[in-house]
Amino acid sequence: MFATAQVISQEDLLKHWQGHRNLTRRVIELFPEKDFFEFSIGGMRTFAQLTSELLAIGAPGLKGIVTRQVEPFKEEAVKFTTKAEFLKKWDESTAEINDLWEQLSMEDFSDTFNLFGQYEFPVIQNILYFIDNEIHHRGQGYVYLRALGIQPPFFWER
Amino acid sequence: MFATAQVISQEDLLKHWQGHRNLTRRVIELFPEKDFFEFSIGGMRTFAQLTSELLAIGAPGLKGIVTRQVEPFKEEAVKFTTKAEFLKKWDESTAEINDLWEQLSMEDFSDTFNLFGQYEFPVIQNILYFIDNEIHHRGQGYVYLRALGIQPPFFWER
Repeated sequence: MFATAQVISQEDLLKHWQGHRNLTRRVIELFPEKDFFEFSIGGMRTFAQLTSELLAIGAPGLKGIVTRQVEPFKEEAVKFTTKAEFLKKWDESTAEINDLWEQLSMEDFSDTFNLFGQYEFPVIQNILYFIDNEIHHRGQGYVYLRALGIQPPFFWER
Repeated sequence: MFATAQVISQEDLLKHWQGHRNLTRRVIELFPEKDFFEFSIGGMRTFAQLTSELLAIGAPGLKGIVTRQVEPFKEEAVKFTTKAEFLKKWDESTAEINDLWEQLSMEDFSDTFNLFGQYEFPVIQNILYFIDNEIHHRGQGYVYLRALGIQPPFFWER
């Protein structure tokens, strides 16, 4: 049995992503219902709007990569009016991402894919973008929570 | 010549990290001198304090990993009183990270290292933490800039 050294394994990258998604889920949960949809700072989007973007990127983006079907970016969660709807969709996406991930091969990560018909990059760059963009917006959510007097979760707890 | 498929190459992970570091540098530059040291929201740290943390993690953390010397976490930039000092240190760290990275082998990434004598994890997890933590805090910096009426850089520009 010969194992080739890897910077990160495919399995560990999924764990890393889902760990971040789990933390974002806890941030959504911590928002008071009203503030999730209404609170913002400096003219930025509400955390509901940011979450809607994250939902439109994660599972749909990965589905495009796996099926090699170029679909335009589409935010469906913008119509949700309760946190419960967001959390339900979040959990469905978690399962969908796990399923899709199993259909990826190591070779896929270096292939180029035109994500949402707009971002023509190697698949690994697209996936890292999904994760980074979520961390970025969740960091903004942390400030919203602090401004609301709510203690956010520890960043290193996944 | 036989190339083994990789989720991400060592070279690309460095490019990814330095791309993020370059974006953070631009965020530092955009802060008005006074606000960099004084502005905050909800009792959080100023962007100078957050930057000080990032400087204490990136190059020093990687140095510990490469030399396998366990050193305690130490924020030296807290004593800086000008943005220029921060930016100078930032650029020195950029060069240091590039040099240290060349001393890493693929096999190192799966080795366990006790970072700062506190975080005993595989090296890849430590490095991803460096990047994620920077994105997280920079996301907070974006909110500070917006609250100050300043347009932050586009997230996808590196």
